[in-house]
Amino acid sequence: MGNKFKVGIAGATGYIGSEAMRILSTHPDIELAWVTSESRVGRKVWEDFPNLLGFVRDEFRQFEPELLSEVDAAIMCLPHGGAMETIKQAVDKFPNTKLVDASGDFRSPRLDKWEEYYKTRHTAREYQGKFVYGFTEFNREKIKQAQYVANPGCFATSLNILLAPFAKHGELVGEVCVNAYTGSSGAGNKPVHTTHHPERGQNVRAYKVLEHQHLVEVVPFLEDMNDANEFDLFFVPQSGPWVRGIFATAFIPLDQRHSLATVNEMVRDAYEPENFIHIVEGSPEMRMVQNTNMAHVTYRAQGDMLVGMCALDNLVKGGAGQAVQNLNLMLGLDESTGLMHPAGYV
Amino acid sequence: MGNKFKVGIAGATGYIGSEAMRILSTHPDIELAWVTSESRVGRKVWEDFPNLLGFVRDEFRQFEPELLSEVDAAIMCLPHGGAMETIKQAVDKFPNTKLVDASGDFRSPRLDKWEEYYKTRHTAREYQGKFVYGFTEFNREKIKQAQYVANPGCFATSLNILLAPFAKHGELVGEVCVNAYTGSSGAGNKPVHTTHHPERGQNVRAYKVLEHQHLVEVVPFLEDMNDANEFDLFFVPQSGPWVRGIFATAFIPLDQRHSLATVNEMVRDAYEPENFIHIVEGSPEMRMVQNTNMAHVTYRAQGDMLVGMCALDNLVKGGAGQAVQNLNLMLGLDESTGLMHPAGYV
Amino acid sequence: MGNKFKVGIAGATGYIGSEAMRILSTHPDIELAWVTSESRVGRKVWEDFPNLLGFVRDEFRQFEPELLSEVDAAIMCLPHGGAMETIKQAVDKFPNTKLVDASGDFRSPRLDKWEEYYKTRHTAREYQGKFVYGFTEFNREKIKQAQYVANPGCFATSLNILLAPFAKHGELVGEVCVNAYTGSSGAGNKPVHTTHHPERGQNVRAYKVLEHQHLVEVVPFLEDMNDANEFDLFFVPQSGPWVRGIFATAFIPLDQRHSLATVNEMVRDAYEPENFIHIVEGSPEMRMVQNTNMAHVTYRAQGDMLVGMCALDNLVKGGAGQAVQNLNLMLGLDESTGLMHPAGYV
Amino acid sequence: MGNKFKVGIAGATGYIGSEAMRILSTHPDIELAWVTSESRVGRKVWEDFPNLLGFVRDEFRQFEPELLSEVDAAIMCLPHGGAMETIKQAVDKFPNTKLVDASGDFRSPRLDKWEEYYKTRHTAREYQGKFVYGFTEFNREKIKQAQYVANPGCFATSLNILLAPFAKHGELVGEVCVNAYTGSSGAGNKPVHTTHHPERGQNVRAYKVLEHQHLVEVVPFLEDMNDANEFDLFFVPQSGPWVRGIFATAFIPLDQRHSLATVNEMVRDAYEPENFIHIVEGSPEMRMVQNTNMAHVTYRAQGDMLVGMCALDNLVKGGAGQAVQNLNLMLGLDESTGLMHPAGYV
Repeated sequence: MGNKFKVGIAGATGYIGSEAMRILSTHPDIELAWVTSESRVGRKVWEDFPNLLGFVRDEFRQFEPELLSEVDAAIMCLPHGGAMETIKQAVDKFPNTKLVDASGDFRSPRLDKWEEYYKTRHTAREYQGKFVYGFTEFNREKIKQAQYVANPGCFATSLNILLAPFAKHGELVGEVCVNAYTGSSGAGNKPVHTTHHPERGQNVRAYKVLEHQHLVEVVPFLEDMNDANEFDLFFVPQSGPWVRGIFATAFIPLDQRHSLATVNEMVRDAYEPENFIHIVEGSPEMRMVQNTNMAHVTYRAQGDMLVGMCALDNLVKGGAGQAVQNLNLMLGLDESTGLMHPAGYV
Repeated sequence: MGNKFKVGIAGATGYIGSEAMRILSTHPDIELAWVTSESRVGRKVWEDFPNLLGFVRDEFRQFEPELLSEVDAAIMCLPHGGAMETIKQAVDKFPNTKLVDASGDFRSPRLDKWEEYYKTRHTAREYQGKFVYGFTEFNREKIKQAQYVANPGCFATSLNILLAPFAKHGELVGEVCVNAYTGSSGAGNKPVHTTHHPERGQNVRAYKVLEHQHLVEVVPFLEDMNDANEFDLFFVPQSGPWVRGIFATAFIPLDQRHSLATVNEMVRDAYEPENFIHIVEGSPEMRMVQNTNMAHVTYRAQGDMLVGMCALDNLVKGGAGQAVQNLNLMLGLDESTGLMHPAGYV
Repeated sequence: MGNKFKVGIAGATGYIGSEAMRILSTHPDIELAWVTSESRVGRKVWEDFPNLLGFVRDEFRQFEPELLSEVDAAIMCLPHGGAMETIKQAVDKFPNTKLVDASGDFRSPRLDKWEEYYKTRHTAREYQGKFVYGFTEFNREKIKQAQYVANPGCFATSLNILLAPFAKHGELVGEVCVNAYTGSSGAGNKPVHTTHHPERGQNVRAYKVLEHQHLVEVVPFLEDMNDANEFDLFFVPQSGPWVRGIFATAFIPLDQRHSLATVNEMVRDAYEPENFIHIVEGSPEMRMVQNTNMAHVTYRAQGDMLVGMCALDNLVKGGAGQAVQNLNLMLGLDESTGLMHPAGYV
Repeated sequence: MGNKFKVGIAGATGYIGSEAMRILSTHPDIELAWVTSESRVGRKVWEDFPNLLGFVRDEFRQFEPELLSEVDAAIMCLPHGGAMETIKQAVDKFPNTKLVDASGDFRSPRLDKWEEYYKTRHTAREYQGKFVYGFTEFNREKIKQAQYVANPGCFATSLNILLAPFAKHGELVGEVCVNAYTGSSGAGNKPVHTTHHPERGQNVRAYKVLEHQHLVEVVPFLEDMNDANEFDLFFVPQSGPWVRGIFATAFIPLDQRHSLATVNEMVRDAYEPENFIHIVEGSPEMRMVQNTNMAHVTYRAQGDMLVGMCALDNLVKGGAGQAVQNLNLMLGLDESTGLMHPAGYV
């Protein structure tokens, strides 16, 4: 154990936090140094998380910044809006500890827009610039050098994956329309009516239509890459009656200079070398990526309309898995360490 | 509309109450006179229950006993423990209004046991005797004459259906073991962790093992019929990842004087004349009764062990449907009026 | 019973057919005269459909055209491609019997396109013109006069509902992008891998991307209404892990002459008078329409992009319910007879 | 790779086989040498199992006994009844290759009973004695020495876990009643009506009531341990609307000499040292063990009735996981190698 990296998880009882516990509990090069929870201080992890019986023996602790002095890095899974205050202190007092922030607080450089979408004041504006946006496959080199990474949102990850290969060549144009269905775990661990099983178990509905807060991280990220070209992004989030998984469908107008062949080339360029994003035939299937750090994508075209589809697990590739992928890079490890687990076929 | 019976529903936003609204909204001989809700006074029913768009135009009202003077009968869907206080007043001030109480408050004559299982004091003890226990198929004649009916619990209904045909002949003996799986709607409309979709959507667990409060209504009801014979009832409630439906399995020791033939005779005697309880071949299937007032039963024997199985919808036959069945009888209507809707095959 | 209309159902064991049995079994003005099935001739309906225990006492019969002489009308639920041969004979020999055809065979006047999408030869081309397209809300007057109605497909119904209000005013323009998620019952009653529960139970996938056969009925229907204006329709069908229900999302470019206000006016014009299509706030929810003939729609706009969403039950409004709605009109009954059943809230 | 054990999987496209591929694809000490499939010879594994994209690069091969000469061991996932013929040859020609047989063919010494329950003739009777029954926790020492292991059935594993601690002390008496609910993956990968999603997605039913074939392995195994004492085992298998997981409930009459304290002692004795069977408070929860090799158990008593409950994943602890656990022992590896993956909390 001596030469493993020490990592803590703050806010380990939320779904991203508990998934991070799960992943790190079998990570070969990382030792889980501490886990914190406001509400369960002093309880054994396995008392509340029987899935970790035999894997995690720790007790939940109360978070305090000093804990950061005990670790090489931490994954911060605190609530949106609250994370920034804690992180501000942490950055000031223990600047040597690397942080992956799973909240939305530092994902967007457009802080006025951020305040509008998150409906709260941003109280750590001067810290935002310290964070690298953690969409691993397109920001890998920066992440390797980063002290602080803002881990992308779950929907944002699916939009990034679908659209970034074109933005990279400045080829996002016109009106891009996307909808994405997510499972109930995307709503977090607080029981509310929209996740109450009798009301969710056979239901589909849309919410935050055209105004989901992940737009505030995706649009600047894509625009920065997309050169001078302009595009509009219309995004409809929807919720379906399953626990884990996002299935996103994008209608992308093709620039008339481009054929499907060049489109495919841009996509293969982007994803063929990747371990965690695979191009599949026919259609992505959500079950093929559930519980894993994999994303599957497909593109189909007709006339000048391109349809792209992406399946991923919102808690892993869209959450704790991508966080560990970034953490690995920040610690100088192979990016895929501890993350290569295939999904069951069923 | 003039010669329809007028009926009100108190506590219409709970799942039993909203199911009662659904059933009465198309009942040919009953006019829904009012619906009440603590939390939504003044809102149109369809604003919160879009399923009733085009069916119910009323607003939710605040419950007050005087409302009872406007109706022939009311279905009381108030919370266990709270119902008794409201009903006490109602009975005193408006004794001419018939009541079906969907709560557990008046289902058991064993009030000390009741207090133990419901973990609260019974404050309307002298009223309990005014209520007829509403297990329709075995109490029909009393219900026809009743001013007040205590509608059985959802699990209780499944246990009653499985065991009453034997108790009726004094043939329940030995150790009767039952488990029953229920869908999430059985837990009511308040979001909690055990009904939080991410934690329920693929889960099975047991709860209140050997100590569920429905025992306090089932045991006296069966014992009364079962003559001097003694039996023990062990009941394990379990929760499954679906919305509606109970599937109960009973292991019933056969008195050695009885063959499967006499068992089948007792069952056929009990249920062949019935509209809402059907004996099926092979196995009951939950989907065949979901959303309906039907219960399906099967019995199989080996040696001196009888296995009985019952499927029903917890909100209809185990709730609002049985309430309307009882209400029909109390109002002198055909018992099945407004209730003959078959399930979809899928 | 004497003055009820007599109606038969051919192909009653498929999901549309069995849903038609369910609806007609409690229809006040229709007597179910016969039901046919290739595979179950001579069996009681309730032996194979225990959901109809107590509702349908008939045996399945072998279909033969002569059965049509015994009824006022029939709902034909035969397989796509096979229906046309049977119907050709029926039309020739018993022209007085009204027919609602639930298959895809007579829904499209573009028979060459039809052959391309259905991948089979159309062998009753000269009969297609006898059929009125049964999208009730926009073809009501023709349906009242019709002898033969081609009932729309399930996806087609959702697309029609979302787009027809604009086509009616010639306002469909540009590139209209739609995706629609359907439950497994949409795939019919033959077990295959894509509906095998282990492989469907937690899955989402797309299929027939941009080439689903319902386009061949929707496009001509909308184009006919849409005057000289041109639009492209891109449609992605997807399958989700539930049994019943379609949720469709349309991205509709707004003609610049139109504001959201005029859009809303066109929608209200179309649907406010309707019994079975309701405009809802926020988002349609699939559970609010499951098992019913209701469709719920919502529209939201941003800039010059309109997002429309529609929820309906694929077997009822998208199948047997719409068929009975049409049948009612053809028989001179009130369109909603036998169809006014609200969904459960859960 | 050089000093890894080489292992093949015969019948790798069934659910147990594909789960074995999944587990071995990341096993640190085993190299997947070949996988076979009758129907997909020559296809890349990931073409049909996209979940294994990036994990398994092999093609499916045609099984022939000679393949056994290339490996240290094989997991045989051939159909019940068919496995025995293949295995007979394998044992004769390549006796040095260790085999774990996942079929039911060699699990029971009572071959006449076997033929009755499996409804087929046993054509390899003289080979049955060569197989050790692979209920790891109670047969560990024999398995370490075994050349051939018959891996227990999924239901059988749950019954063994619940009842073996008492049988071990000769304390199983009277009438033991068990029911167990399984997910749809237990039915295998061939689509049939009982696993057709529309008919399974919201359904519960029982099947093979009191006559499931796993009794033929469980009863002799328990009786052998249980000394001279006699007990009857009544078992009701049931199917629920989820993909993975068994939840079993046992009603076990307590010998009057025993208190709950001694019961608990027997259970703790049996399972406290184990890595893959954990005693939990309250109730096992199926989601805590899904996709893992864990089983969770709880016992509760009242009077002289003991209720035991067990949750496990039918494809892992009840299938491929237990197979690898046994394989590890047979190869001299630590039993838990490659199997220590916790479930997600949701």
